[in-house]
Amino acid sequence: MTEFELIERYFRDGCQRGSKRKDVLFGIGDDAAILRAPDNNQLVVTTDTLVEGIHFLKDIDPKVLAYKSVAVNLSDLAAMGADPAWLTLALTLPKSDEAWLAGFAEGLNQICEYYGIALVGGDTTRGPLTITLTAMGHVPSDRGIYRHGANPGDWIFVTGTLGDSAAGLKLLTGDLSCDEDLKEFLVTKHLRPVPRVLAGRSLRGIASACMDLSDGLAGDIKHICKASEVSAHINIEQLPLSSALQQALGEANAQSLAIVGGEDYELLFTVPENRKGALMTALGEAGVNHSCIGQMRGGSGVHFYRDGELVTDLVDSFQHF
Amino acid sequence: MTEFELIERYFRDGCQRGSKRKDVLFGIGDDAAILRAPDNNQLVVTTDTLVEGIHFLKDIDPKVLAYKSVAVNLSDLAAMGADPAWLTLALTLPKSDEAWLAGFAEGLNQICEYYGIALVGGDTTRGPLTITLTAMGHVPSDRGIYRHGANPGDWIFVTGTLGDSAAGLKLLTGDLSCDEDLKEFLVTKHLRPVPRVLAGRSLRGIASACMDLSDGLAGDIKHICKASEVSAHINIEQLPLSSALQQALGEANAQSLAIVGGEDYELLFTVPENRKGALMTALGEAGVNHSCIGQMRGGSGVHFYRDGELVTDLVDSFQHF
Repeated sequence: MTEFELIERYFRDGCQRGSKRKDVLFGIGDDAAILRAPDNNQLVVTTDTLVEGIHFLKDIDPKVLAYKSVAVNLSDLAAMGADPAWLTLALTLPKSDEAWLAGFAEGLNQICEYYGIALVGGDTTRGPLTITLTAMGHVPSDRGIYRHGANPGDWIFVTGTLGDSAAGLKLLTGDLSCDEDLKEFLVTKHLRPVPRVLAGRSLRGIASACMDLSDGLAGDIKHICKASEVSAHINIEQLPLSSALQQALGEANAQSLAIVGGEDYELLFTVPENRKGALMTALGEAGVNHSCIGQMRGGSGVHFYRDGELVTDLVDSFQHF
Repeated sequence: MTEFELIERYFRDGCQRGSKRKDVLFGIGDDAAILRAPDNNQLVVTTDTLVEGIHFLKDIDPKVLAYKSVAVNLSDLAAMGADPAWLTLALTLPKSDEAWLAGFAEGLNQICEYYGIALVGGDTTRGPLTITLTAMGHVPSDRGIYRHGANPGDWIFVTGTLGDSAAGLKLLTGDLSCDEDLKEFLVTKHLRPVPRVLAGRSLRGIASACMDLSDGLAGDIKHICKASEVSAHINIEQLPLSSALQQALGEANAQSLAIVGGEDYELLFTVPENRKGALMTALGEAGVNHSCIGQMRGGSGVHFYRDGELVTDLVDSFQHF
């Protein structure tokens, strides 16, 4: 089989048959895909590139890589409150490797099937290993959740726990070591982040602003503050930490990673006081753990507090790590 | 300025202000873009990757590279009969280079403005120079033109002239030389192909099948034949050749390049006998040159004729080139 036939076999057959979406009028195999967007909805589109050696380690399992590439894009859609629908894949490969392609396609097909999304197009080229995905989804008209909607007084929330993924990466690169069972949990959080699709959907009409955490809380929350023209006040002791992370690192280092560690792919969002009840109902029904970590106020910047005291030099306080 | 600020300045400001599309509810600057698709239309989506050293020469002007990257994607949309609307850009760069970025953004903004499309999202990463674009457009419901609609008896057409781009590439790489004025024409055809947006649109309801020519006529037409289950019969002397190409190469070599040369980005399409009049009217109004190069019949495969005689070994007949 030629490489072209291989790719066709792995992606076209697998992903198209797997998804069975009726809104894909024509998927892979023509100059472009033709898709039917639902009425009274808006289209939500995001693109992410992952480069070998920068966004993932050289020896990563292709199945895991495919999963994570898709998950990262779905996380962006979730942050807008969108339901994921379609995906295009641009795959640049250094060489034709059937085992690698088979693994990558298997991982891709699995996550597409799980979230009911269809791979509708792609391009395969020769070159250094690079993966670019464009994910498309839908949100009911004018119900998308932006970064710019937070107001002073809104409470700041995150889903799940923070810092686990960063610890998992350190375990993979040998910069950290811990017990095997803790390691497995943390590494899995790094390699297989769960995009908060259901949570994002549940936040429509409740969250005033939302984004996903990819670069670490301290840096990411600046985007909401800047877009919304508010300041964030975060209580370090309220940051949700997994028991695995605390056991592996101790509380102080766990808090450090929760603040500066990246790739959590949890949602960071703000909720006005009068919608806190609705939030508990909505996320409770969706079974999504979430924690209030602080409050937005007027002014600008991001301010961390420990036991009620402003931490004046955050970088300094973490430089031991 | 940091690289992030640079990119924001060049792409976000330029492309978003330039396009002024009202259907972009939110473009660059959040986790994802939110877009409004028109009613009674279907969404058309295509992705293409260009890798340095493979799809473009190392020393290419970034302005030209941006133009061509977009043009190639618009060509795919045109081949479906779609109107282009939105674009996402995934740009992988080996280093931060303000002059390069400025040139790339200028080229991108120009073509986006010309075709009235908006850059709605993107991702910039560090790595070997790679450009992945995803282009989205619209086609009135069920009016998209596929590769699989050709029938025996349909006439085969191409827009414009063939082979110029391949000659332009040979001139750039030093594999060919000719007079300066011919060279300029041919190199321009290679570097700045004009996507057949207006032609594609005009072919709705007229062409039974359509695709764009990117890999060369001989290879590309196989896709229509296979998808439509027909055979193609092409008369070599009917292939449209520019006078520049004929002057630079002589007729026989010009024909060779028209058959096997890539990157024409012309439309290859089929039209039933009873719609030939409508075709002439539609493409005449759009001012698009087009030529009938042969006819589809039953059976399979692609067959070339010279002076009515089947050319039995096409590869052999061109191996001198």
